[in-house]
Amino acid sequence: MELAFGPRVAKSPYFDATVAAGVTHFSVYNQMYMPVLYGDPEGEYRRLTEAVAIWDVACQRQVELHGTDAAALAQLLCARDLRTQVVGQGKYAPVCDHRGRILNDPVVLKVDEDRWWLSIADGDLLWWARAIAAERGLDVAVSEPDVSPLAIQGPKAEDVVASMFGDWIRDLKYFWFGAAEIKDIPVLVSRSGWSKQGGFELYLRDGRRGVDLWNLVLAAGEPHGIGPGAPNYIERIESNLLSFRADTVDDCTPLELGLGRFMSLDSDVDFIGKDALRAQRDRGALPRRLVGVTLDDQPTGPNEHPWPASVDGRPVGSIRAACHSIRFDRPIALALIDTPHDVPGTVLDIDTGVGTRSGVVTELPFTD
Amino acid sequence: MELAFGPRVAKSPYFDATVAAGVTHFSVYNQMYMPVLYGDPEGEYRRLTEAVAIWDVACQRQVELHGTDAAALAQLLCARDLRTQVVGQGKYAPVCDHRGRILNDPVVLKVDEDRWWLSIADGDLLWWARAIAAERGLDVAVSEPDVSPLAIQGPKAEDVVASMFGDWIRDLKYFWFGAAEIKDIPVLVSRSGWSKQGGFELYLRDGRRGVDLWNLVLAAGEPHGIGPGAPNYIERIESNLLSFRADTVDDCTPLELGLGRFMSLDSDVDFIGKDALRAQRDRGALPRRLVGVTLDDQPTGPNEHPWPASVDGRPVGSIRAACHSIRFDRPIALALIDTPHDVPGTVLDIDTGVGTRSGVVTELPFTD
Repeated sequence: MELAFGPRVAKSPYFDATVAAGVTHFSVYNQMYMPVLYGDPEGEYRRLTEAVAIWDVACQRQVELHGTDAAALAQLLCARDLRTQVVGQGKYAPVCDHRGRILNDPVVLKVDEDRWWLSIADGDLLWWARAIAAERGLDVAVSEPDVSPLAIQGPKAEDVVASMFGDWIRDLKYFWFGAAEIKDIPVLVSRSGWSKQGGFELYLRDGRRGVDLWNLVLAAGEPHGIGPGAPNYIERIESNLLSFRADTVDDCTPLELGLGRFMSLDSDVDFIGKDALRAQRDRGALPRRLVGVTLDDQPTGPNEHPWPASVDGRPVGSIRAACHSIRFDRPIALALIDTPHDVPGTVLDIDTGVGTRSGVVTELPFTD
Repeated sequence: MELAFGPRVAKSPYFDATVAAGVTHFSVYNQMYMPVLYGDPEGEYRRLTEAVAIWDVACQRQVELHGTDAAALAQLLCARDLRTQVVGQGKYAPVCDHRGRILNDPVVLKVDEDRWWLSIADGDLLWWARAIAAERGLDVAVSEPDVSPLAIQGPKAEDVVASMFGDWIRDLKYFWFGAAEIKDIPVLVSRSGWSKQGGFELYLRDGRRGVDLWNLVLAAGEPHGIGPGAPNYIERIESNLLSFRADTVDDCTPLELGLGRFMSLDSDVDFIGKDALRAQRDRGALPRRLVGVTLDDQPTGPNEHPWPASVDGRPVGSIRAACHSIRFDRPIALALIDTPHDVPGTVLDIDTGVGTRSGVVTELPFTD
């Protein structure tokens, strides 16, 4: 099916480079075209897990908080204690509403003492941040800056990035970053990215230079076998990396998604949703949980939509994202399943829309 | 270019029907696949302007406000006096942030004394409404209900809808609506829709019945020449119907977009953004305005992205949406142009990315 291009959805600064590189499939993310495939799903998986891939993730937009109250607003928005965070450090932190429902799962970068970026998943978190800032009378400007991440992911990524920016990047801890320039292109270099294969993200700070930066990375990566890719559907399921909206529903909380370790419910900092999340935790039993599922032996491509799951004919949730795992050589899925049917070993009946199949609940992360 | 289908973006209840009807191009709107073309742009325009078309606009989601403070929240969110609005009446109303920046331009439906729907353009207005409700301590539930509009647009739409629901629909005033059922499918029937060709929207209240409703409309419309279509790119430019995000930028206000007549800046009701909007109006000169442009004689398909406009080499804004008008038989566009270059007759140099062309500013609406 064709994707229509028009002015309502934005092109990334890397758009022309991705077309030249042979992108075949796009999705739309944060009102921006996001490349998702270059025509070779298994080859792109191998490149990511065995060598190095370059991804246009400009759609991972930044919500910038700038001003006297920037740190105060970041802390109100994020369900994690940010008080010890220093300039140059990033943290993965759920953002929730007043009822504890997850709104986003950004990486939060402290760019300067009075400047923070929330590097966001799909959604108008910009509006949420503006609402809170204005309602609380905070002295902070909330904007979307001209910043567009380019990801370099895979076991060879460090060598590629070091050859571009120097060996200092080898000392970056996970989610930490530093400012740099290459050929007069301003970037932040961060050790981060939406895979568990290791890698970096270059936060491009000048949208006019996207194709230039892409080509510099391609040239630097050529000795290491670099090639184009995209956030990898199979690898992220295998690695249990959350895909906001794919894995989530409107009213689920980070606790249900297994993100409790990224929250600071017992700290004395105040953030939106804290009371609701503490109450849910203290009740003991969650209404549902994100779990793994091992599917039966039928071939499993990506599911086009969530598949309803049932036990004894009663709805118990849904399969969110299914694939044939290359690493585990079996069909697996992430599923949001109502308790008590989230117990490992539970057998689910799954309605794929073109027939029923079965699956067995497993704990996350997946293991061999 | 192919569109990737996956569980992060939702299928409409009409999805299978649109595929069966031959949809060729989709976009993504409110995290939902939106059909935009069935392969025949001129034929679909003629069907809309001369007969009747059926559109899947389920992506026009509803933000439901329900509870004691539903009316109070609706009024806070909308820059228009809603006090005289009665059950069964809808109003087009800009929603702005505290600085008067437009966040959305919904039709606001008073469904019941304590239940309002904002029928929204693309964006997470759900989160905005929840933020305001929670920060102000209002007694209101804010949710996205199971409601999916299906549009029937064109000069024959009234006959089609009357044949389905009865002649009472002929008495509906613009934006008014009533509850109805057909074959046990619950809907609201509203005289509305994103064209100036006349028409109705059926607000389907049971997502399981989408294909059934689609087929009932097709059958009722068959004697009137009905066929599939989508929000029409050419007709909406000719008619100067706002496309949020296509025609707008992050910091523009409804005044700049020519929506002043839909706001109540001189009423004594309080709403978010009122002070900022009054201040902008009272300053007299707007920083920019949405204007018409008559382009030179080169062929003009839809622009894939905004085209920068300049005067004497200085940037003055951008062409937002261009087309070859069938009605006026000339290339036209909507443009957001900085004052004082918004004056009719101003000649713009336009960078299309594949060459420069010229255009002349005109007032809106377009005339022969």
